[in-house]
Amino acid sequence: MDIRPLGARLAQERTVALFKSADLEVMRLVLLAGKSLPPHSVSGEITVQCIEGCIDITADGHSHVLHAGQLLYLAGGIMHGVIALQDSSALVTVALRK
Amino acid sequence: MDIRPLGARLAQERTVALFKSADLEVMRLVLLAGKSLPPHSVSGEITVQCIEGCIDITADGHSHVLHAGQLLYLAGGIMHGVIALQDSSALVTVALRK
Repeated sequence: MDIRPLGARLAQERTVALFKSADLEVMRLVLLAGKSLPPHSVSGEITVQCIEGCIDITADGHSHVLHAGQLLYLAGGIMHGVIALQDSSALVTVALRK
Repeated sequence: MDIRPLGARLAQERTVALFKSADLEVMRLVLLAGKSLPPHSVSGEITVQCIEGCIDITADGHSHVLHAGQLLYLAGGIMHGVIALQDSSALVTVALRK
């Protein structure tokens, strides 16, 4: 799968699931500047890797600003919200908890 | 965690574990051109994302050449070997199977 920066195509792209297997779910999140995902949680552990742009992830009341090439780990069940500070895409990997 | 390309520092770096949690293990693999990892397997599912350079992953007899920005999924238990075609680093995420 190709997860290079979308660059000029970013504004026309949407969040897509890349694959879901028995233990892992991987998606590419696309979020334009100023857009946000309201606080939510999933049961499994997550890594979020900023591919391009800049996103702010607030988890358990702490804000984490991720620039391109930075990766954040979130334990399972943690409430987290995301806001894009620039037009951004990120690779989200979820460990599916059984 | 910062997983930007190492660039000129690559030759001085080694493979490092970035973190290991209950469900996920994430490491940055550093492999110089011509170096290889002999065929091996782990029980959990894996994603390998080439960060820089170019690596060839042979899994179940099929060769997969990954350039920077490409990601490969491997099911758990699959025998796979890696050879670096250029000085390379890659992000390896393993879903720990319990």
